Amino acid sequence: MCQLLGMNCATPTDITFSLTGFAARGGVTDHHADGFGVAFFEEKACRLFIDNASSATSPVAELVKRYPIKSKNVISHIRKATQGPVLLENCHPFMRELWGRHWIFAHNGDLKTFQPFLGGVYQPVGDTDSELAFCTIMQALRKRFPGSQPPLNELFHALADITREITLHGVFNYLLCNGQALFAHCSTNLYYIVREWPFSTAHLIDADMTIDFAQVTTEDDRVAVIATAPLTDDEVWTRFEPGELLMFRDGKLELRTIVPIPESVRLANAANTACT
Amino acid sequence: MCQLLGMNCATPTDITFSLTGFAARGGVTDHHADGFGVAFFEEKACRLFIDNASSATSPVAELVKRYPIKSKNVISHIRKATQGPVLLENCHPFMRELWGRHWIFAHNGDLKTFQPFLGGVYQPVGDTDSELAFCTIMQALRKRFPGSQPPLNELFHALADITREITLHGVFNYLLCNGQALFAHCSTNLYYIVREWPFSTAHLIDADMTIDFAQVTTEDDRVAVIATAPLTDDEVWTRFEPGELLMFRDGKLELRTIVPIPESVRLANAANTACT
Repeated sequence: MCQLLGMNCATPTDITFSLTGFAARGGVTDHHADGFGVAFFEEKACRLFIDNASSATSPVAELVKRYPIKSKNVISHIRKATQGPVLLENCHPFMRELWGRHWIFAHNGDLKTFQPFLGGVYQPVGDTDSELAFCTIMQALRKRFPGSQPPLNELFHALADITREITLHGVFNYLLCNGQALFAHCSTNLYYIVREWPFSTAHLIDADMTIDFAQVTTEDDRVAVIATAPLTDDEVWTRFEPGELLMFRDGKLELRTIVPIPESVRLANAANTACT
Repeated sequence: MCQLLGMNCATPTDITFSLTGFAARGGVTDHHADGFGVAFFEEKACRLFIDNASSATSPVAELVKRYPIKSKNVISHIRKATQGPVLLENCHPFMRELWGRHWIFAHNGDLKTFQPFLGGVYQPVGDTDSELAFCTIMQALRKRFPGSQPPLNELFHALADITREITLHGVFNYLLCNGQALFAHCSTNLYYIVREWPFSTAHLIDADMTIDFAQVTTEDDRVAVIATAPLTDDEVWTRFEPGELLMFRDGKLELRTIVPIPESVRLANAANTACT
């Protein structure tokens, strides 16, 4: 399985601690060594770093672990290729523009017999079912709201409808962000934690590193971290329910719904450990 | 003025030598310190690095100078802000997708009273006239060829038509690339050089560095470098004529045309040293 990492915060925050543990899974503590990517929003702007080297050895991963880019919204992905070869154009996250904003998407899962009709405004550059799903989401959002971006709660419910159709095709854990809110959907595996005042310490599972968040935060800070598997062994992570779609804003869980998954799909998903 | 740097090659080539000289102009040998960006195509994939720090001090610029990413198509830009504040979303190059390919654009110049009608498929994220011009080009190409990408010579002539309209608004030196060919247009200042067998040495203007290309190349190599001002002081660079649009492929100058610039615009351009 690939792995996902997301962060959504009240104030621009440095993700290097979480990223250090996460990147170790790309070849050191785990085998997701077929590509690495991370996107940092800085208000409307977005920096996207991708590499088809593993996150454990990539100079790009090394840069982002060392360079404390402060961001309110981050999405990262490490890849274990199952659909599409190990090519740079198949590395997540993917980026597109919609309503004058950058959108970032990363997927963990495997969509079978997924052949949506794309009208041409968004077309995949690579060969993954993941980029195809992203283009499908972007097209459907644009079709539903052709002029400009609707309020986030309307956007959230539209996204739930679009997700319902795609989720019929298989495992569809994803993170999606436009720099304002971070949307997280779970088919099988996804966890989150919200860290807020008073902050305490945390110890990484994948590297012997402890941080005392109380030393580096203020009362205004609040950070939601979302990951395929918990990153720390001394904090309580909440597991998403299958079908759960959450929207985080300013480090807070703001909206929640369940996108129903048919029983047949749920059983097939449970047996599927692939990842594109 | 901002500055542009482009490279188009027959075989994947490391641009670190040219980039070292070019990046020095972002705060060391010149004053283009309001942002830095570079895009590397690797076949259809594209890695875009941007920073609103200067290229002389940015850790991102440091990474790309040290990490020899081999690419057949590179576009880089250093910014001296004139339209739009010093924000990350105003840093060139800009990226959009068209016909299932990434497109990269960087601009040196200043477009006045440029208010095109954008239908919504491409919208600027930042505030620059440059990103607006890029969205206009993407929209016009999509309108002219709605289904899929035409042959490169048809694309070239369509681009000349679109450029003719935008160039009426002011200085419009630009580099545009889809990973297959690099298009370069000159309103005022642009130079190029084609390096091929037998290769010789070159010495940077902006850093005391000499390279013997004969030591690091084969007979199959051929590299076109395009820049706002020559990067080396011991090679012969060809100056573009005002209005010239060139297409480079596989390190070769393949197509050439002149996009006429009205005399009034040419005179105004000559007096304008701004850059967005």
